[in-house]
Amino acid sequence: MQHTICHVRVTPIAFRDPPLLNAAGIHEPWALRSIIEIETNTAYVGINETYGDQAMLDLLAKAAPALQGLSPWALNEMEARVRALVQPAAGGSEFLGEQISLAPGTHVSKNVAKVISAFEVAMLDLQGQLAQAPVVDLLGGAVRDAVPFSAYLFFKYAQHIDKPYSPDPFGEGLNPTQMVAQARRMIDQYGFKSIKLKAGALPPEQEVDTLLALAKAFPGAPLRIDPNANWSVATSLKAVEQLRGVLEYYEDPAPGLEGMAAVAKACDVPLATNMVVTDFPEFARNVRMGCPVRIVLSDHHYWGGLRSTQQLSRLCQTFDMGLSMHSNSHLGISLIAMTHLAAAVPLLSYACDTHYPWQDEEIVQGGRLQFEGGSLRVPTGAGLGVRIDPEALKRLHDNWLNCGIRHRDDLGQMRKYDSSFTGKQPRY
Amino acid sequence: MQHTICHVRVTPIAFRDPPLLNAAGIHEPWALRSIIEIETNTAYVGINETYGDQAMLDLLAKAAPALQGLSPWALNEMEARVRALVQPAAGGSEFLGEQISLAPGTHVSKNVAKVISAFEVAMLDLQGQLAQAPVVDLLGGAVRDAVPFSAYLFFKYAQHIDKPYSPDPFGEGLNPTQMVAQARRMIDQYGFKSIKLKAGALPPEQEVDTLLALAKAFPGAPLRIDPNANWSVATSLKAVEQLRGVLEYYEDPAPGLEGMAAVAKACDVPLATNMVVTDFPEFARNVRMGCPVRIVLSDHHYWGGLRSTQQLSRLCQTFDMGLSMHSNSHLGISLIAMTHLAAAVPLLSYACDTHYPWQDEEIVQGGRLQFEGGSLRVPTGAGLGVRIDPEALKRLHDNWLNCGIRHRDDLGQMRKYDSSFTGKQPRY
Repeated sequence: MQHTICHVRVTPIAFRDPPLLNAAGIHEPWALRSIIEIETNTAYVGINETYGDQAMLDLLAKAAPALQGLSPWALNEMEARVRALVQPAAGGSEFLGEQISLAPGTHVSKNVAKVISAFEVAMLDLQGQLAQAPVVDLLGGAVRDAVPFSAYLFFKYAQHIDKPYSPDPFGEGLNPTQMVAQARRMIDQYGFKSIKLKAGALPPEQEVDTLLALAKAFPGAPLRIDPNANWSVATSLKAVEQLRGVLEYYEDPAPGLEGMAAVAKACDVPLATNMVVTDFPEFARNVRMGCPVRIVLSDHHYWGGLRSTQQLSRLCQTFDMGLSMHSNSHLGISLIAMTHLAAAVPLLSYACDTHYPWQDEEIVQGGRLQFEGGSLRVPTGAGLGVRIDPEALKRLHDNWLNCGIRHRDDLGQMRKYDSSFTGKQPRY
Repeated sequence: MQHTICHVRVTPIAFRDPPLLNAAGIHEPWALRSIIEIETNTAYVGINETYGDQAMLDLLAKAAPALQGLSPWALNEMEARVRALVQPAAGGSEFLGEQISLAPGTHVSKNVAKVISAFEVAMLDLQGQLAQAPVVDLLGGAVRDAVPFSAYLFFKYAQHIDKPYSPDPFGEGLNPTQMVAQARRMIDQYGFKSIKLKAGALPPEQEVDTLLALAKAFPGAPLRIDPNANWSVATSLKAVEQLRGVLEYYEDPAPGLEGMAAVAKACDVPLATNMVVTDFPEFARNVRMGCPVRIVLSDHHYWGGLRSTQQLSRLCQTFDMGLSMHSNSHLGISLIAMTHLAAAVPLLSYACDTHYPWQDEEIVQGGRLQFEGGSLRVPTGAGLGVRIDPEALKRLHDNWLNCGIRHRDDLGQMRKYDSSFTGKQPRY
């Protein structure tokens, strides 16, 4: 029986997101994603989750015809067709703005890679169902049974300015004591062993003090700080000196590859990034500069998919670089795709980032995914090993219909709190 | 039903090989390969073909336990186990000698990669049978229906010095007229569109004259010359000047990456190699030197398999390099694996090298594979799409038992013709 793709369904969804602070501003009350369902003539359905801003929805609509009549195995052909449909017009650039640096997935240069990724994972889910093998097996098989994630801390307000719903359980997080409590709560619930602090939001001294307090409260836990390029080179070097002996790696302290190179020259903590090495041409540029960035924070959603991220891993290995994993606000399909991928990539030995604890919704059957000791077990069922809960999909799509948000705007949201906020970087 | 590997069979074979001249000496009358059969508890058998020298047989025997109990999908686990078994002892180095530069597959540093490749292809053949998909689909699907190969010309004697069997139909090939006739014969039979001349065997002027004669006889055909690093930098530059406007690429004229870099600096024909970029560390070295080599001649047999060669393709793409394909003397299983791979790698747009026309035997059911217009159709059956002919396997194994050759020795063979031959490189 010949299996071919005959239908593609993209459903935008929205879910509650807490008032998390970052360099660009603050999270809005609703985070956007889209859910992809790819159906074959033989009634198999492959699923995936990706970005949900309007530009992405437009791109997906434009690219969906690429899948018509394709075999679920024809990933290379899908890529060629998507490239032909998406590349020339570079659709969606009108929605770009100050968000670029924070979320590489919104950059127009990633249009092809993120659409390919959106379709690839769903096609791999189909392949796994056809072959009766989990997606991790299609990637060469698991090198670990469970994938460790890190506690991803954010400075935050107790609730959104417009109070659209009852506040999240984490409460305010604006000083070291509150942040240690935030970490404690998250670690108690999920068992994470590593801690990442999203920084670049408060004055650097407060953020450094917070990290030092975390180091004291969680001795031996690998710690990371991510100012999202909101620090000057001088500030970056001063902070890393104060954090001597504390950091596992130093994520995107200063802006641009040149800024990172200046920091790298004067600091012996390895630099990590999801801002200046976000595609293969940027990878080459980093190598040609002598690899100031030593660790790439990969994200299959904009690196072109799971197989492409495996190729990135080979590039990192070839140039003696490390690999870890970046995340945006997401639900369980993205989380499970990350888990299959991380399980199949030997080099991915750092605990991966995830925003998952900040969400309280789920789209997959069975509800919220369960961590054990900070790790997620790699599914062994066919394909991704999770299915969509139709009622949840309807509920989250209704959220999208009602929330009024169509593209992420952390800066605009921040201006509701502070009309003088410019988002100019580096702020410190 | 759980499929696990329960048995591995390695059968050394030998087949007739004509007296082909190269930089290291001359081919012996018998070429060695080994045939791998990997069996599951569920009676599926995955097959492959690889090197057959004694060192490789020893390595395969040492590594075979790695496969016991593995799922055919567990390629990453297989790699880890092979690495653990093979790496430390670096077995087989005693058989190395002057052959290193000609055949990267015999270098001890490739032990892990070539064993992984030997097992990977057979496991992919199993996966394809389980998933009812051709191997090319497991690699992302075909980007071309047929893979073009090139006419691979050799200077040669009419027959072997020890006359072990009747001479091959190509006759002597020692001057331009004979070589044009060799090309004509091969192109008439196979339909190749590109021509590669193995050089480094006769004085450079004769080889240049031959290529100029080929250019005249086959106008418009892409031409390549491969002196196997047997020319000095000065000779390389003189020759490429005489060949102005004729070469598609210039393969391994001078020894070492430094020699290649010196040639690259003074010549505008892109340099290709299967001698100085033969693994990922060497790839990095070439990049750090500014990419004097522009085209990698890949060979999945020593690059760690089909998926690893796909990763090599991504590396080449990232650093604006090209990719073509190298070969050694081989039969149909290797040829079909190369075809699946080349079909799945968009970057592999050059016609691939193959020694296939120099062989007159086959190991696969149905006998010799058929080219159409110089290309081989990508199989659409499950797995590799070819099966072993048990009678052929027995016959070719008997050859191995009787031929007395246990490792390739082009130099020793050449000394039978010319006792003063040293093989010292570069000769010219």
